[in-house]
Amino acid sequence: MILINGESKEHIEISDRGFQYGDGLFETIEIRDGQAVFLERHLQRLNAGCQRLYIPFPDIEVLRFEAGELCRLSVGGTHPLRAVLKIIITRGSGGRGYRQPDVIHPTRILSLHSYPDYPEVYRQQGIVVRICATRLGLNPALAGIKHLNRLEQVLARAEWKDSSIQEGLMLDVNGHVIEGTMTNLFYVKNNSLHTAILAQSGVAGIMRGIIMKISVDRGFSVVEHEFTKDELLSADEVFVCNSIIGIWPVNQIETTRFSVGPATRNIQIQLDKLISDDSMEVECWK
Amino acid sequence: MILINGESKEHIEISDRGFQYGDGLFETIEIRDGQAVFLERHLQRLNAGCQRLYIPFPDIEVLRFEAGELCRLSVGGTHPLRAVLKIIITRGSGGRGYRQPDVIHPTRILSLHSYPDYPEVYRQQGIVVRICATRLGLNPALAGIKHLNRLEQVLARAEWKDSSIQEGLMLDVNGHVIEGTMTNLFYVKNNSLHTAILAQSGVAGIMRGIIMKISVDRGFSVVEHEFTKDELLSADEVFVCNSIIGIWPVNQIETTRFSVGPATRNIQIQLDKLISDDSMEVECWK
Repeated sequence: MILINGESKEHIEISDRGFQYGDGLFETIEIRDGQAVFLERHLQRLNAGCQRLYIPFPDIEVLRFEAGELCRLSVGGTHPLRAVLKIIITRGSGGRGYRQPDVIHPTRILSLHSYPDYPEVYRQQGIVVRICATRLGLNPALAGIKHLNRLEQVLARAEWKDSSIQEGLMLDVNGHVIEGTMTNLFYVKNNSLHTAILAQSGVAGIMRGIIMKISVDRGFSVVEHEFTKDELLSADEVFVCNSIIGIWPVNQIETTRFSVGPATRNIQIQLDKLISDDSMEVECWK
Repeated sequence: MILINGESKEHIEISDRGFQYGDGLFETIEIRDGQAVFLERHLQRLNAGCQRLYIPFPDIEVLRFEAGELCRLSVGGTHPLRAVLKIIITRGSGGRGYRQPDVIHPTRILSLHSYPDYPEVYRQQGIVVRICATRLGLNPALAGIKHLNRLEQVLARAEWKDSSIQEGLMLDVNGHVIEGTMTNLFYVKNNSLHTAILAQSGVAGIMRGIIMKISVDRGFSVVEHEFTKDELLSADEVFVCNSIIGIWPVNQIETTRFSVGPATRNIQIQLDKLISDDSMEVECWK
């Protein structure tokens, strides 16, 4: 089921700037037991992204209501209680060419999708990762936000079809490791957690932010910095994360092997606990 | 009127990857006297762009037929004979996340739009141009092609509302002048024509290519190179171009003034002649 500006539809006007220019943003949210996990953080990021792109943020109560409505309706429908909620906000239609209209009427689209059937073994025993040839461009104006201009990720993901490889890492044009095609990346070395600075490229994932907070709260040092592939390959532990998969340990990057270590396990446990706690906050949806 | 895969429609599936990720390409083509100007060059570029993005190129005869059909139908309709034809090709629907489907069924969309009512004075006496704060990112994988990821241009065009300024120039993140938000840029200095290298950012416009060919054919030296704003401001003549406006001389960049010089006028005349000749080739459309 899809809600476009509150109405059940499956099509959008060709003139929508989301289609014409990728002029919009999106969020991908896990629905677990019928509840949207970390919904408030996703809505906050969507709001921040809208501010960056000068798109008026829709009424947050309406977004919460429509998200709840979709989940409620899906309980008796074809979707399982575990699902993926995607929210897209675009600048709507209008304007001449790239110039935005004087009055912006954003389009909001909420859709529910099947939860992907990733094997539990990825989460438990880790995944195999490759390095993509497609590089991330540098653009401070767009870095960090989850906008609809995703050709770099599409090209990177098109580089492999081998199903034994679960994710591809992307470097920026300067050779710094930034993130996976659909995940953020962390590595552990000398009891510190390391992740890329996302000032010039990359998406500042909700799960990335939560993992950083979990770690800092527990006294674990977290370092955002520029690092190369060689630095990554010398790590003690590596993992990737996003809002749908949670945390997947990495046990192999090209030919270099890693163990699933205690820091990764510890953060996985803390994250599970936090999600259980978070689900309490949105109980009203049930 | 809009044709989506040959059918008259105004809406597209939400699941289309053009909407989800900007996973596609477009062309904007002038219709003059009911004929698509430089159609074959636009179709060639669209084909080249599809190859870069691994999108199967639709049957070129079908594209030609549908373009002609739209123009023919518009003659008696609400659109004037002078119009803008936009062709969009996307990777269609399907795939999981960024991963493209194993079998790609591209979406092709042809739409006719009113020709913009730009005053003739822009073409004759030139325009005023500003320098945008929004920079172009660097990405060799996407540079040159006219893809649907256009947030940089949207943000740059949102920087000004002053109607006395007709275009904004964009620098890349390294400070090199690349192009306008909707145009390519040339300058004339010491009897040579200069334009930016588009290996890392920018769109290699059809009109840009034609102007370069016109100039070379007439023994005028054309240099593609990296240049700064200061080099541009020291030019003898400056102009911008695209497939809809043709050539607009630039008579002011911020506070620096330029005359509309003989080289610009000469290229404008040659271009008009070429468009008259080109229209002979597609006479069958009438």
